[in-house]
Amino acid sequence: MSNSPIGVFDSGVGGLTVLKVLAEHFPSESFLYLGDTARLPYGSKSPETIRKYSEQNIRFLIQQGVKAVVIACNSASSQIVEKDFDKVPVFTVIEPGAKAALHTSEGTIGVLGTRATIASGLYEKTLLRLSSAEGRSIQIFSQACPLFVPLAEEGWVDDPITNLIAYRYCQPLAQKGVDTLILGCTHYPILKSSIQKAVGGGVALIDSGSAITLQLKEEFSLGHLSASSSSGQRIDIRTTDISPQFEAMVHQLMSPLMIHSLEVVTL
Amino acid sequence: MSNSPIGVFDSGVGGLTVLKVLAEHFPSESFLYLGDTARLPYGSKSPETIRKYSEQNIRFLIQQGVKAVVIACNSASSQIVEKDFDKVPVFTVIEPGAKAALHTSEGTIGVLGTRATIASGLYEKTLLRLSSAEGRSIQIFSQACPLFVPLAEEGWVDDPITNLIAYRYCQPLAQKGVDTLILGCTHYPILKSSIQKAVGGGVALIDSGSAITLQLKEEFSLGHLSASSSSGQRIDIRTTDISPQFEAMVHQLMSPLMIHSLEVVTL
Repeated sequence: MSNSPIGVFDSGVGGLTVLKVLAEHFPSESFLYLGDTARLPYGSKSPETIRKYSEQNIRFLIQQGVKAVVIACNSASSQIVEKDFDKVPVFTVIEPGAKAALHTSEGTIGVLGTRATIASGLYEKTLLRLSSAEGRSIQIFSQACPLFVPLAEEGWVDDPITNLIAYRYCQPLAQKGVDTLILGCTHYPILKSSIQKAVGGGVALIDSGSAITLQLKEEFSLGHLSASSSSGQRIDIRTTDISPQFEAMVHQLMSPLMIHSLEVVTL
Repeated sequence: MSNSPIGVFDSGVGGLTVLKVLAEHFPSESFLYLGDTARLPYGSKSPETIRKYSEQNIRFLIQQGVKAVVIACNSASSQIVEKDFDKVPVFTVIEPGAKAALHTSEGTIGVLGTRATIASGLYEKTLLRLSSAEGRSIQIFSQACPLFVPLAEEGWVDDPITNLIAYRYCQPLAQKGVDTLILGCTHYPILKSSIQKAVGGGVALIDSGSAITLQLKEEFSLGHLSASSSSGQRIDIRTTDISPQFEAMVHQLMSPLMIHSLEVVTL
């Protein structure tokens, strides 16, 4: 199993920001990515529907022989509490993101996410559980940002309109004095510069890709995951729908890493 | 069959702007609306996927016994060319919208829509076919507006940010001198005031609801559709996913019309 790929899934292209960080940090590991582009976005759907789609995605990756599954999508991560499926370990981005935020924060943490992620309250619950285990007291302020995903997909990066929208979403959190801000959606790192401007340069931004990378490093070192003995890396991408715009985004977001295959599948 | 409801489907809530206009103009007719909220939006998906989902929606409505199907969704309308399924007539919003635009235009027509609708080129083809049949020469300018649907769903109506985005999308068309603008997506009437400001007060805006109403009036008068002999009207709504936000939008968009039932179905 150790040379099998690590499965990563997301509702669409956003999870590629996570895949890229993982692939760069683990150059001997191979990755099989599934983007459920036919049914994206998940962030505005009900918990039941997100859960149903996420389980189908996990089953698909397991059938393809992955040794672990990373749920890159925060909306999906907020609905899956299982630690494994058929003994294949499943990692979400919520707990790693919460842990990373507690490292940088003096005590006032902001969370940005889709409607589904914010409504689940899972970042808040996880932050409170982890901080109280450390005997710390923290304050958390959350904000749903439904326009960030379409803005990232429209490619309006470093754009005055995006800056205005980021300002509207983030200013209430900045006024509360947050010192650390969780980017609780895989698309949001694409808009990092606008978000940083809106909250001020002193606020630490936590992205899911870096957070899950730290988590997997720990899993490898604890022996919960077997490292690949292969010297090469394969990156294969599967999607449930394809468009020229999606293909362009894959290559733009993953560059300079090489994609070995990009195919459409039916779940 | 004449007392059977007219089926209307859309990828989500946007089609309710069409349903409302139809229900107000035909107070003796009943309507069964299907919003495919579990898989919305259609506008960024591939032609094959939009077609597959649309056919499932049409089959569902026919199984429920509707006497006709109105495809309120422009993205779906752009992929379905059949005039009937199992002898049940199917109406799209493209040809009615094009006809209405030719009524008001002096010759320079703008089309706004989702990426899928604009990429299909179907409004352009239909406008050119209808105008050349009349021996008229027209110019058409099109613009995809991917942020309009999430802005409408975020409820940022009459909002300075929405005005800015409308200005960015619409100014190139205004500069070309369009005198008539097709709102080629059912969500866009919700943002009508921002769009009108962006193109100027003299430009005629064509919405799918009014256009398909004119079309159905003609179908009734030509005897292609049998009018209901019932004096009452029932409006039933089915969706493939439900959220509190969706329910709130249903009541907000349909008010003061009464909704008889709102249920989740699996297709």
